[in-house]
Amino acid sequence: MALEAIRYRRGSLAIVNQLLLPEEIRYESIDGVERAWQAIRDMEVRGAPAIALLGCLALAQELQAGAGPAEDAEQLAAFVDERLRRLESARPTAANMAHEAQRLRGLVRQRLQSPGITAPALRHSVMAAAEELLERERAQNRSLGAHGARHLLARVPDGGVTVLTHCNTGGLATAGYGTALGVVWSLQAAGRLSRVFCTETRPFHQGGRLTALELRERGVPATLITDGAAAAAMRLRGIHAVVVGADRVAANGDTANKIGTYQLAVAARHHGVPFYVAAPSSSCDPSLPDGDAIPIEERPAREVTHLRGLCLAPPDIDVWNPAFDVTPHDLITGGIITEFGVFAPGELRQALAERAAQGQ
Amino acid sequence: MALEAIRYRRGSLAIVNQLLLPEEIRYESIDGVERAWQAIRDMEVRGAPAIALLGCLALAQELQAGAGPAEDAEQLAAFVDERLRRLESARPTAANMAHEAQRLRGLVRQRLQSPGITAPALRHSVMAAAEELLERERAQNRSLGAHGARHLLARVPDGGVTVLTHCNTGGLATAGYGTALGVVWSLQAAGRLSRVFCTETRPFHQGGRLTALELRERGVPATLITDGAAAAAMRLRGIHAVVVGADRVAANGDTANKIGTYQLAVAARHHGVPFYVAAPSSSCDPSLPDGDAIPIEERPAREVTHLRGLCLAPPDIDVWNPAFDVTPHDLITGGIITEFGVFAPGELRQALAERAAQGQ
Repeated sequence: MALEAIRYRRGSLAIVNQLLLPEEIRYESIDGVERAWQAIRDMEVRGAPAIALLGCLALAQELQAGAGPAEDAEQLAAFVDERLRRLESARPTAANMAHEAQRLRGLVRQRLQSPGITAPALRHSVMAAAEELLERERAQNRSLGAHGARHLLARVPDGGVTVLTHCNTGGLATAGYGTALGVVWSLQAAGRLSRVFCTETRPFHQGGRLTALELRERGVPATLITDGAAAAAMRLRGIHAVVVGADRVAANGDTANKIGTYQLAVAARHHGVPFYVAAPSSSCDPSLPDGDAIPIEERPAREVTHLRGLCLAPPDIDVWNPAFDVTPHDLITGGIITEFGVFAPGELRQALAERAAQGQ
Repeated sequence: MALEAIRYRRGSLAIVNQLLLPEEIRYESIDGVERAWQAIRDMEVRGAPAIALLGCLALAQELQAGAGPAEDAEQLAAFVDERLRRLESARPTAANMAHEAQRLRGLVRQRLQSPGITAPALRHSVMAAAEELLERERAQNRSLGAHGARHLLARVPDGGVTVLTHCNTGGLATAGYGTALGVVWSLQAAGRLSRVFCTETRPFHQGGRLTALELRERGVPATLITDGAAAAAMRLRGIHAVVVGADRVAANGDTANKIGTYQLAVAARHHGVPFYVAAPSSSCDPSLPDGDAIPIEERPAREVTHLRGLCLAPPDIDVWNPAFDVTPHDLITGGIITEFGVFAPGELRQALAERAAQGQ
C-alpha cells in the first residue's frame, strides 16, 4: 500500500499524521519517545498495534541516537524501563504497548544476566528486539487474516460475502497489513468479497477518513455509513458478518474496542449476524479476568463538540466521551480471530496458554 | 424559549436557520411556498411538525401577499392544491405535511360547497386554517408531554429519571414546545428529571447542535454522547427510558424516525429499557399497513463525507445515507405517546379511529 502509518529504517522514523487524512498526506519525523508519546496521545497515530510499534521504534530511534547511559548496563536498563513506562502511559486501554514493554523488559533482564554484558551490547539488543516487531507483526497479521477468512467462509453461503467493520484496523492501524481489515484482504484475495460497509466512527472519523481510504486503495467495493445506520444496514443490506478489531481482550473473551463496538455487537446478535473480534495475541491480556477490569480511557469533551474549528454543540455542554467500550464475550458469536486460529471466547485463555507453552 | 424555529404574525414569516446553530442565530425571511420548500429541503428547518407548520404558514404568507387567482374560487382552490402538492414534495418520509395538506384540502372542498363562496372568502378561510395550526400544535404537544411523563413515571422507580433521546424533537422541531422533548419538559416540571443523554445524531448533528442547546436553555442537566455510545450509556449510565420522536407511524405501530432510532430500539430491548415513541396523531398514517410501506428518503453522500467545507472521507466513496430508519412495532416496548394518551403499538389504530369518530 502506498500509504504507510510508520516509515522506519535504522536512524530514521516518520509517521503519517492520521488526523489530516484523507485531505493531506503529511509525514512527520519522530526523534524519540517524547515525540512518539505526544503523537499517540493526540491520535496522530492510533490503533493498538500501531501504537505499540511506534513506541518500540521510537525507543530504538532514541537509543540509536545515543540517549541514555553509555557506560553502565544496569543504568541503561533502568533508562529503558523508564522510557517504556512513559510509552505505556500515553493511552491506557490498548494492551499491545504494555505487552511489548513486558517483552522488552524480559529481554533486558535476560541480557543483564549474561556474563560481561556491556551497555553498548545491551543497547544493540534492545534496538534489534524493538525493530523485530515490524516484521513479526506483519507475519502475524497475515496469518490472522487467513484464519479469519477461512472461518467466516465456512459459516456463510457460497458466493460473495458482505462484511461490516468499525473504526480502522488496516495498514494504518498496524505494521502495514491489518487485523479486522486483514480478514477483509484475505477474503478479497480469495475472490469472495462482495462489499465492505464501514462505519464512520465518531468522534475521530477513522472509518470515513482511514478505512474508506484503505478500502478504495485496494479496490474493495466499499460503502460508508454513519454509526447510527449500522443496524439498518444489517436489516436491509445483507450483511453476512461483522468483523472488528480489539484494543484489549480479557481472559474470558470480553473485549474493549472503539466506542460503538458494543452497540454493533448487540445489533448483530439481534439480526443473527456472526460477530468476530480480530485480536492478535498481543492484544490479549489474560491477566485481567473480565472486561470490567479493563481501564477505559475517557477523552476530552472538545473532541465531540468541535471538529477542527467547527462548533458542533454548545461549548459548555457536558459530554461523555469514552474512547472505547467493552463487548461482553457472549456477544462475540463468530469468534476471536488470532494469528493462531479462531477461538470461541471461552477457549481463548487455554489456547493462548498452550501456544505460549509451545514457545510460539 | 428565546429561540423560536418559526416566527409568524400575519404578513411576516421568518425561520431561524438551524444549519448555523449553535454558532449563529440567523433569522431568515420566508416570502412563500418556494422559499419554504427550499428551506425544508436544505434542512434549515427540520422536524416533521415544524416542516408542516412552516409549509402551512408559508402558504398563508403567500395568500396574504395576494398570490393566486383573485376572482375565481374554483381557480383559487386549484392553486392552493398545487401549492400544497409542492410542499408535500420537499421531503417524503414525514407524515405531518401530508396530514395538514389533507386537512386544508378538505376545508377547501367544504367551503366550495357553500353557496356564493367568493375567492377572497376562500382565501381568508385557508389562511385562518393554516394559522390555526400554530396554537393547536402547541396545545397538542403539551398534552402529549403530560401523557408521556405520567406513563413513564408509573414504570420507573421513585426518584429522579434519566432519559436518553435522539435527534431533536423540541421547540425547534415543532410549534415551540416539543414531542419527545415535550415529555422531558413535563418530567422536569414534575420535578422528576435527573438527566437527559442526547445523541449527537450524525450526519446533521441535530442532537449536539439543537437538543443540547434546548436542554441547556431550559436548565436540564444534559450529557451529549456520540451515536455509537448509546448502548454503552444504557449499560453503564443508568438510563431509565428512551424517548424519541416520529416522522411517520404506520397502522401497526411501525415507526419511521431519524436514522439511528432503530439501533437505539434494539439496544433498549437488549438492556430492558422501555422504548417510547412520541408521535402526535398528525405523525400517524393509518393508511399504511406497516413500516415497509413508508417511503424512506435517501440524502446526498456529501452530507456524510463533508461538513461545511471539511472533508471527512474520500470524496468519491460510495455512501448509504438514509435520513430515516423504521423501528418495528415490537421494539416500541414503552408505548406510542400521542396527545390522546399512550398506546401500545397494537392499540394505536383503534384509538386514533375512535378519537377521529369523536371529532377530536
